Amino acid sequence: MIYFDNSATTRPYEEVVQTFAAVSKQYFANPSSLHAKGGEAERLLNKARQNIAAYMDAEPSEIIFTSGGTEGNNIAIKGSAIENKERGMHLITTMTEHASVYETFNYLESIGFSVTYLNVNSNGQISLEELENSITDKTTLVSILHVNNETGAVQPVEEIGKILAAHPKIIYHVDHVQGVGKVPLDLKRAGIDLCTISGHKFHGLKGTGALYVRSGIRLSPLFTGGEQEGRIRAGTENVAGIVSLAKAMRMTLDEAKQKGSFLKEIHSYLYNSLSSVPGIAVNSPQTGAAPHILNFSIDGIKPEVFIHTLEEQQIYVSTRSACSSKKAGASRILLAMGIKDSLASSAIRISLSYENTMHEAEIVVETIKKAVKNLKEVMR
Amino acid sequence: MIYFDNSATTRPYEEVVQTFAAVSKQYFANPSSLHAKGGEAERLLNKARQNIAAYMDAEPSEIIFTSGGTEGNNIAIKGSAIENKERGMHLITTMTEHASVYETFNYLESIGFSVTYLNVNSNGQISLEELENSITDKTTLVSILHVNNETGAVQPVEEIGKILAAHPKIIYHVDHVQGVGKVPLDLKRAGIDLCTISGHKFHGLKGTGALYVRSGIRLSPLFTGGEQEGRIRAGTENVAGIVSLAKAMRMTLDEAKQKGSFLKEIHSYLYNSLSSVPGIAVNSPQTGAAPHILNFSIDGIKPEVFIHTLEEQQIYVSTRSACSSKKAGASRILLAMGIKDSLASSAIRISLSYENTMHEAEIVVETIKKAVKNLKEVMR
Repeated sequence: MIYFDNSATTRPYEEVVQTFAAVSKQYFANPSSLHAKGGEAERLLNKARQNIAAYMDAEPSEIIFTSGGTEGNNIAIKGSAIENKERGMHLITTMTEHASVYETFNYLESIGFSVTYLNVNSNGQISLEELENSITDKTTLVSILHVNNETGAVQPVEEIGKILAAHPKIIYHVDHVQGVGKVPLDLKRAGIDLCTISGHKFHGLKGTGALYVRSGIRLSPLFTGGEQEGRIRAGTENVAGIVSLAKAMRMTLDEAKQKGSFLKEIHSYLYNSLSSVPGIAVNSPQTGAAPHILNFSIDGIKPEVFIHTLEEQQIYVSTRSACSSKKAGASRILLAMGIKDSLASSAIRISLSYENTMHEAEIVVETIKKAVKNLKEVMR
Repeated sequence: MIYFDNSATTRPYEEVVQTFAAVSKQYFANPSSLHAKGGEAERLLNKARQNIAAYMDAEPSEIIFTSGGTEGNNIAIKGSAIENKERGMHLITTMTEHASVYETFNYLESIGFSVTYLNVNSNGQISLEELENSITDKTTLVSILHVNNETGAVQPVEEIGKILAAHPKIIYHVDHVQGVGKVPLDLKRAGIDLCTISGHKFHGLKGTGALYVRSGIRLSPLFTGGEQEGRIRAGTENVAGIVSLAKAMRMTLDEAKQKGSFLKEIHSYLYNSLSSVPGIAVNSPQTGAAPHILNFSIDGIKPEVFIHTLEEQQIYVSTRSACSSKKAGASRILLAMGIKDSLASSAIRISLSYENTMHEAEIVVETIKKAVKNLKEVMR
């Protein structure tokens, strides 16, 4: 099997699953319990929080554990917008956010907030000028997707941070879910206040994630209840999940360090090979994009048909974001980049991880070439 | 080790941990992915949903998976209150709810809702008359804790359901987190619209849970984003967690069936033995209470001191709800039952599971007797 759908989810590292199982069995007590077994679980939890904070160059008290990227984005955006609504009800984001951000801003509009959705150019990037012009004295939040989950387009998060530095009351959230281990992010240098990550996108487990909340930032909680996670996220902590998240993050960052430009090489090969196939239009930007996502369209071929053709060869790719895969019609992301409807409706996404190989990429390119040729003949 | 803190959390069944690990490895694909691997994960997810629905005598479409009890209660209560706020902004609950319900109603009050907190008698039960008198034409939600997590008091959920049957527009939520496998609940007979359960309270994993949402009930979602879980709970499903939840539920219900009145026997033994110890006052109701929770106070002894004395003998018990364990002062639950402050501030909770034995209970009683005697002498 060739698994090229790593932006939908990754195969968890064997060690991550083992860690989860071991912690679940040996440290099953509730970390809030006052007895020694609770204390042992609490120490493990704190250690995981310290480790993740260190990987993100943050303080342990700035890390809040969540059940994943959607929850992290919802806590960050609703929590910030609602906490600061007396100061202002204008929010800024982009046209090409993940559903968990985009739909959350749509919801906030429905309850009275005003939202500016920044346009993107053909490379999927916003205009810094448009951002600057959109800021009003009622703006309380800017939320930007670091690495686009459909195209790999990377937003200039540091330059955005420089603009926002002149507006210290605006909270700056970055959805870094697709970036961990692939596109480095320096929270301090970019002046980021809130940052979402999700375990299952970097060989961790589903149901795990974290939100960086810069010291001093207050959020209205989504879950009210117990006093866990600085009262931002009530509920018994998933200790085994949290420890496994720290493990997955360390392993991914180590792998990224060791394998260096490895993904970039596969990406370039895929970009160049697929660009030259007649009938294929590559939608991902050629330069400045993330090294693990390549989006392309085959005009006139339904993407579901193409996916099933590849899966006969045990090759697994996707159409768009898994969270939006069952929606019919054109990709909102590709349309925003100015890609025409017929191509935006027939997009295929390849997404890589460090577990993939160049040999796999070669097989995939050959299979795609044959499949396009055969399907085009059938369609004729 | 004698683990008598099962209402804080339970040790997961070995098979549950194995199931989680096996599913995480073999069915890691995103169930929303259109390819065959996504389809396999989706089928597993659907199977787990069918099983849990069957255990709860519900339809699969009525089961929404969550990250646990706190999330389930928050979705149910905020989701229902906010969805129906045009119809009315009056809500009813009790004085003795778990923090994830109580604090959620406090939050709703802070944003303009009016909440009636029903009183309880010395057995921890509400008055049906007070409930009936509290209902107004602006009431949209009644939320009742089935089994109290500190005392084991059981609310008359079926009788409450009968009263609410005369008010079909009022939504009826039951927090059944402490009840699964211990105190049976017939959702249909009690006329329940929303019901929360949590995996780690019945030997499942932390980070897993479900919310029953009766067909036809609409909820405003807490997480907006993808279209998962009937749009009530966006985000990639924790497939392995969900399958392990179904496994834990089946195993717990099987164990309850096989072991019958086993917990009740241990509970009676503990009740009778501890009641007769000079200086101990049992706070749990003698009859009509859940068979797995026994709450008692030792006047004049700090509960933390007592817990640490027991833990020297490797016996683990707790003071109150784990979610509130780090709060100082008297238990809100015990005060509501009319228990005096000095006793409500010195409460100890024993909580059992089917994994415990009568022999353990005998050791615990002897150890408690000695500890009370020694501590009383030290205090004198």
